[in-house]
Amino acid sequence: MTQHSHQTAPTQFVEANGIRFAYRHFGKAPDFDPELFLDGIDPEYLAELNDSIDVPLIFNQHFTGTMDHWDPAVIDGLAKGREVILFNNAGVSSSSGEVPTTFEEMGANAIAFIKALGLKKVDVLGFSIGGFVAQEIALQVPDLVRRLVLVGTGPRGGQNMATLTPEAQQIFGATYKVPEEIWLKVHFTDSEASQAAGREFLKRFLRRTENRDPEVNEKVAPAQIEAIGKWGVQRGGSYEYLKTILQPTLVINGDNDVIIYSINSWILQQNIPNAQLIIYPDANHGSQYQYPERFVRHVSDFLSEYDSYVSDFLSEDDAAAPAVFESTEQSGS
Amino acid sequence: MTQHSHQTAPTQFVEANGIRFAYRHFGKAPDFDPELFLDGIDPEYLAELNDSIDVPLIFNQHFTGTMDHWDPAVIDGLAKGREVILFNNAGVSSSSGEVPTTFEEMGANAIAFIKALGLKKVDVLGFSIGGFVAQEIALQVPDLVRRLVLVGTGPRGGQNMATLTPEAQQIFGATYKVPEEIWLKVHFTDSEASQAAGREFLKRFLRRTENRDPEVNEKVAPAQIEAIGKWGVQRGGSYEYLKTILQPTLVINGDNDVIIYSINSWILQQNIPNAQLIIYPDANHGSQYQYPERFVRHVSDFLSEYDSYVSDFLSEDDAAAPAVFESTEQSGS
Repeated sequence: MTQHSHQTAPTQFVEANGIRFAYRHFGKAPDFDPELFLDGIDPEYLAELNDSIDVPLIFNQHFTGTMDHWDPAVIDGLAKGREVILFNNAGVSSSSGEVPTTFEEMGANAIAFIKALGLKKVDVLGFSIGGFVAQEIALQVPDLVRRLVLVGTGPRGGQNMATLTPEAQQIFGATYKVPEEIWLKVHFTDSEASQAAGREFLKRFLRRTENRDPEVNEKVAPAQIEAIGKWGVQRGGSYEYLKTILQPTLVINGDNDVIIYSINSWILQQNIPNAQLIIYPDANHGSQYQYPERFVRHVSDFLSEYDSYVSDFLSEDDAAAPAVFESTEQSGS
Repeated sequence: MTQHSHQTAPTQFVEANGIRFAYRHFGKAPDFDPELFLDGIDPEYLAELNDSIDVPLIFNQHFTGTMDHWDPAVIDGLAKGREVILFNNAGVSSSSGEVPTTFEEMGANAIAFIKALGLKKVDVLGFSIGGFVAQEIALQVPDLVRRLVLVGTGPRGGQNMATLTPEAQQIFGATYKVPEEIWLKVHFTDSEASQAAGREFLKRFLRRTENRDPEVNEKVAPAQIEAIGKWGVQRGGSYEYLKTILQPTLVINGDNDVIIYSINSWILQQNIPNAQLIIYPDANHGSQYQYPERFVRHVSDFLSEYDSYVSDFLSEDDAAAPAVFESTEQSGS
């Protein structure tokens, strides 16, 4: 794709659904890491894999966030091995239109954006309410999504999700001398180590100085909060819909997320049929910004992994893949 | 160390506490994978790291298991990058002595074994009740343990741990035409994919044909069950002791462990201060045998990781490691 980084990638625009979507597209297609493959991989599988991995990763942002709220360490880390696409959904910052008051509509807008780029298959990452949008994309057009990464998020009707948690009310209701320092409270725990990681995050977060996104206007937060209320309301069988998300899914969170309680990540894992869960220690809502290298490694491995690849493209019988282990047997002594 | 594998490593013996412990020691010290290091690593840290990683990984086995009950794909996978030590604790199979009826005593025996090998620092992995022993080692001699890996296990007084779960009673009470097929029920789910992975595991499990360990005698199961009953009894504050386990810890389990319910892995993560949790999909008690490559990658990365290394050896102030991110900044554009 391009040699651009989070810091230098130009903001581009594409029209869909009557909305002018702002986005940034950079990164490079993966080189194969033979460590990620089982011994004795079938050359035909390898060829299929080569075809399949030209799949960009689409990022869905958190509450009131813009493209500039991603961590360069995470985005550039992932962009070393794949194409990445950041965008602002409708009504957010440099994108035109209005923020809808449901995540169903935000998902539909995201799908329109992805299709407007001419993409037939994408990997989708969502952080916080971006994870609700990511789930909606997978639910509405399953064929569009190869794999799903859900970070610091939860299911429809999850625990304490219909309103802001008490901690979130306190954090979002406070004022901060340096406005960015709100993210030290949202994304990091109060421990010394986590706060130190947070201050490093803030430096990275402010690194892009040219062509930053404008802050969101005053209509964004109320619309997103209204949508959160509808998404979060608890009903019987609230989690049933998760059983229809068949993509290999990676769920990641901190162990002490006070914005969307960590137990919601457990619930996602327990209900999405092919979901792996990773929980980081001493970490809050933005665990991926506390452990950016570890997060990049876990997500990259997940997106490139041959084990999961099998379940994406092969029948269940093939997925047993005896050839794979037989080859291990031959080389094992 | 040696070029031996799980299949060929000779059984050796060492005396301690009046017990003749059987063990197998093989594998090679790690090569550094530069991918596992942050940009701009300080040469002094690298030197310290080089000193520190000559640390073998000690494996603690499950209920009635011997050294031959480990999966060669897992052991040989891990042995590619580090020294590994399998052993039978007191009274089990080729080791002499009696199985004690508490995990405290089993832990003390394991410590005697480790010290008899002249080791000052080890990484410790425990699977199932081997995870109880691993916790006891870390609790009784914290300085002996660098990092801890707890697989398919749970805390003292965890959920449904004082007696066998209903599923475990059914599985261990049944008879099997082929005795090894009990492990298809213990370690794998009923799904077609998991059972297929289980059949591949059984092939690997039987691969070593010479100098296999004898099966355990009839006194082992009753003693281990008595110890399980004492470990599993629920008391107020049962989890408080976990807060004293300060080692970086990796907790791994399947999402549907019917032997030690998966929620116990969540409880371990939530109470051990520096614990990371990984849960695998569609997997039962032996999730590491269903996804051996993934497990080897996760454990190897965890044991070699520089992030965690920082927390092992440096002060909390140093752990903030601004130099690390500043170097990322310089190379980020």
